[in-house]
Amino acid sequence: MSNIDEFFERVISVKLPEDRQTVDILEQTLLPGTIKRINLRTKEELWDAIKKLKVRGAPAIGVSAAYGIAVLANRIEASDFDSFYKEFKELKDYLASSRPTAVNLFWALNRMDDKALSLKNESLDKIKELLFEEAQKIRDEDVAISRSIGELGFGLLKELKKEGKEVGILTHCNAGTIATAKYGTATAPMYTALENGWAGTDMHVYCDETRPLLQGARLTSFELHNAGITTTLQCDNMASMLMKQGKIDIVFVGCDRVAKNGDSANKIGTSGLAILAKHYGIPFYICAPSSTIDLNTARGDDIPIEMRDPEEVTTMWYKERMAPEGIDAFNPAFDFAEHELITGIITEKGIAHAPFDKAFEELGIGK
Amino acid sequence: MSNIDEFFERVISVKLPEDRQTVDILEQTLLPGTIKRINLRTKEELWDAIKKLKVRGAPAIGVSAAYGIAVLANRIEASDFDSFYKEFKELKDYLASSRPTAVNLFWALNRMDDKALSLKNESLDKIKELLFEEAQKIRDEDVAISRSIGELGFGLLKELKKEGKEVGILTHCNAGTIATAKYGTATAPMYTALENGWAGTDMHVYCDETRPLLQGARLTSFELHNAGITTTLQCDNMASMLMKQGKIDIVFVGCDRVAKNGDSANKIGTSGLAILAKHYGIPFYICAPSSTIDLNTARGDDIPIEMRDPEEVTTMWYKERMAPEGIDAFNPAFDFAEHELITGIITEKGIAHAPFDKAFEELGIGK
Repeated sequence: MSNIDEFFERVISVKLPEDRQTVDILEQTLLPGTIKRINLRTKEELWDAIKKLKVRGAPAIGVSAAYGIAVLANRIEASDFDSFYKEFKELKDYLASSRPTAVNLFWALNRMDDKALSLKNESLDKIKELLFEEAQKIRDEDVAISRSIGELGFGLLKELKKEGKEVGILTHCNAGTIATAKYGTATAPMYTALENGWAGTDMHVYCDETRPLLQGARLTSFELHNAGITTTLQCDNMASMLMKQGKIDIVFVGCDRVAKNGDSANKIGTSGLAILAKHYGIPFYICAPSSTIDLNTARGDDIPIEMRDPEEVTTMWYKERMAPEGIDAFNPAFDFAEHELITGIITEKGIAHAPFDKAFEELGIGK
Repeated sequence: MSNIDEFFERVISVKLPEDRQTVDILEQTLLPGTIKRINLRTKEELWDAIKKLKVRGAPAIGVSAAYGIAVLANRIEASDFDSFYKEFKELKDYLASSRPTAVNLFWALNRMDDKALSLKNESLDKIKELLFEEAQKIRDEDVAISRSIGELGFGLLKELKKEGKEVGILTHCNAGTIATAKYGTATAPMYTALENGWAGTDMHVYCDETRPLLQGARLTSFELHNAGITTTLQCDNMASMLMKQGKIDIVFVGCDRVAKNGDSANKIGTSGLAILAKHYGIPFYICAPSSTIDLNTARGDDIPIEMRDPEEVTTMWYKERMAPEGIDAFNPAFDFAEHELITGIITEKGIAHAPFDKAFEELGIGK
């Protein structure tokens, strides 16, 4: 097994063991200190894992829920479709209650539900088998999308590669393997490079720690470091110096939603990073599955920004205060990079350049 | 006593009590949780306070050392200058050993030493009195410089003030009262505004938390909040959004050293902040005592940047790891804002605008 395959085997967010009796996940609340995989057998264990963020990241949650409902459905002892489906629905509603704001959780469970309903004239054994197949499809589709983004991003890395010199990449937050089914989005170009024979030392990834919740420090630097990629962690406010020193050749970030004009909402700090990249003449790429491109949203200002608990800023790591009692704190979860700051938006269908609305159309996005 | 006078009474970094038996300092290692003043009586207590950062910030350390050596000298029991001066020198060398990298500590102690030597023909009582006077001068000069910077900065704030609207100010790190003798540098415009009758609600100061050591969170937000100024703390990566939202009218930051061309070295994150301010068309001011302007340094690239322990980034608040073992971390203490990003450099002699070398000359700096 190659190093990169061994890496995925070890840290992949979720997989279905051959016996299909459990869902096997990486226990993400123990990161970065401990790499531990756990097997979720019961509906309570599945619910608890999603609730307590043992598995996190929209695609990873979706795949876990799909695998989970297939595993649970496989154990239903019923003699006819109606009693099978009644129990299936109860299990589905129960799992859906684990994290009420996770859109991908409902999307995956609803897709499994639709599948079950479409099979009502099949035997229960066949239904159970086809539910496993549907869950696998959900997983494989996410892998394929990330892999396409990875290939396109890797093409950019190859252009930047100079003999004997590492390619410097900066990323923000975690849009990595542990949040998705396999490649991540912003990390997909790096993992694709490894699969194409690059050594970890052919590139050097600089991870913004990403205050306040430190996903870059806890998750991204963890996974890239474990994959054998040369990795450096820096505070968010240090990106400008890295760019000034010529260490950054390209920026890859993920995104939560892209507006029609190309404005791309992503973790707080993204707009600042884009401005810095533009200032230093460094290409700045958004890695976006086309499902995140929302043509019904005209521009970034129309995307609602989640404002989070000020305590995340004023207390350190939820344990010790690091600012006075009573102080106000500004704590949005995301901001957006204006389209004019973005060099390109990499989707699995191709790379969109400005004007983005025209490019999206040409790529067949939103049809 | 006005609110601002009461504030200074309570949180000022260092003062000499009327009985002149001790040095009265704010115990800064207890911030932001506890406001506690302590009286340093013995040479050991003075040494320990400087060593353990109970008093910190170059000007505050200088004033503490000057007051301290005056208090200790006043207690020397000698009958002639030579035996007095021998003991004075021992005390001076002892205090100087508390923090070997603090340039201002040596500068203040050497100035006190020169003063003592210049008085060798005076009576010991008079020498002791004039040493107190010299220490007071060191303190008063720092206050006067900061106050001049404050007046100039307040002039800018008045221009920005619109009826019924607060002036939005962003600052980075701590260049505040607790680091200096009274007004701070970046905070001087705000405190001067209070002394000129502004209410705390006439302005709104946004403090970057300033990773990795969180001086903005622990110190700046503490002191401004205590002075009654409307204060918000944000993570460094959130400044771009605040600017985009129109909340920031002006940026004030301190500096460690300004090069001849105006490049200004300051806490890491300053160059990024300057780029953001320029992008959004927000005036960006460096608050710099003219002693920090080094005409022998041609440009920012010539200023050596201190690289600090990666552990400051990878472990949280020195207590708990937040990144994997073995991960590399980028951790410079400062960067610099290129001169073309700086709207003006406020010195106590006036505000310098580009071209800065010419402006410094016109202001009589470096003569």
